[in-house]
Amino acid sequence: MIDINFQKQIAFIKEIDKLKYIQRKTSLFNSNRHENDAEHSWHLAMMALVMSEQSNEKVDLLKVIKMLLIHDIVEIDAGDTFLFDTTKSHDNTEEELKAAKRIFGLLPEGQAEELITIWEEFEAAETAEAKFAKAVDRLAPMMQNDSNNGGTWKEFDVPYETVIEKKKKIKEGSEIAWDYAKGLVDDFYQK
Amino acid sequence: MIDINFQKQIAFIKEIDKLKYIQRKTSLFNSNRHENDAEHSWHLAMMALVMSEQSNEKVDLLKVIKMLLIHDIVEIDAGDTFLFDTTKSHDNTEEELKAAKRIFGLLPEGQAEELITIWEEFEAAETAEAKFAKAVDRLAPMMQNDSNNGGTWKEFDVPYETVIEKKKKIKEGSEIAWDYAKGLVDDFYQK
Repeated sequence: MIDINFQKQIAFIKEIDKLKYIQRKTSLFNSNRHENDAEHSWHLAMMALVMSEQSNEKVDLLKVIKMLLIHDIVEIDAGDTFLFDTTKSHDNTEEELKAAKRIFGLLPEGQAEELITIWEEFEAAETAEAKFAKAVDRLAPMMQNDSNNGGTWKEFDVPYETVIEKKKKIKEGSEIAWDYAKGLVDDFYQK
Repeated sequence: MIDINFQKQIAFIKEIDKLKYIQRKTSLFNSNRHENDAEHSWHLAMMALVMSEQSNEKVDLLKVIKMLLIHDIVEIDAGDTFLFDTTKSHDNTEEELKAAKRIFGLLPEGQAEELITIWEEFEAAETAEAKFAKAVDRLAPMMQNDSNNGGTWKEFDVPYETVIEKKKKIKEGSEIAWDYAKGLVDDFYQK
């Protein structure tokens, strides 16, 4: 006789396998193979793990890692929205909230509430943890684009000012990461 | 002028992108698409996040998640060794230790030491955290095989006793996970 909470956790674990099919616009380093949301989320969690000392404010690392592991799970239902998409907002909150409630809702009630709250905290980008997690999420594709001769900046003809506008919030999470990231953009657009 | 520790962290983050190319024998749920080590590591970290209450002993969740995020990084150099491989041990420690030292060695010294130590703790499977992390790592492919009409058990004609022998250590990390996992094996081999 298997515990009901355990059964719910198993159902959730099976459901989130679908994140491995959600393709991002960004490609792997030095590659044209597009990245999926699951491997992207792993990479961001690793970045937080090794870079947390670069956060402007002291952060609860476990919370940052939780945010990054779960931040794209809503895309199983809502799909990936490209940061530089000019027709659809990146933050399609209503559709994503519905997705969060359905998917995290597979878990036991207390866990579902915890993960929805953490996901909302990430989206709001107001706490130290959320600001740093957002900085990491914004930095990774810039490093990938840099390795891919401009990557999505070039592919979608994104103007320099748009990249800076969309990315400058990195500074709120990590000054040093922003210095580095802005350098990558400046180098590419000077060429 | 960018900090030297930050530069080392960036070099490490770029290097571990290669984990996304390491293919496992196991396929995604209800699929014949093979899984890569990065998305596998993400999925295990998520399992630990939602299932830590199922550990036999109380665990430090952050440490368990660190173990699972990094546990396969050595395979960038050493390659994936299949659990049921009859010609090569799954624990090719010498080759893997060399890989750990090279890859984690890209980080600032203190961080490199921390991650090598955590990886060794995982491999030794003696602490509560390592036993639970190992249980999660062994459970995931069993769930995948169950969803894929036997998956690698069927593909490689693995005898029932071998599966039980290789997997029974799940019980040391989580009794409830082992009851569930053994049930999956029994169901498949009865068919």
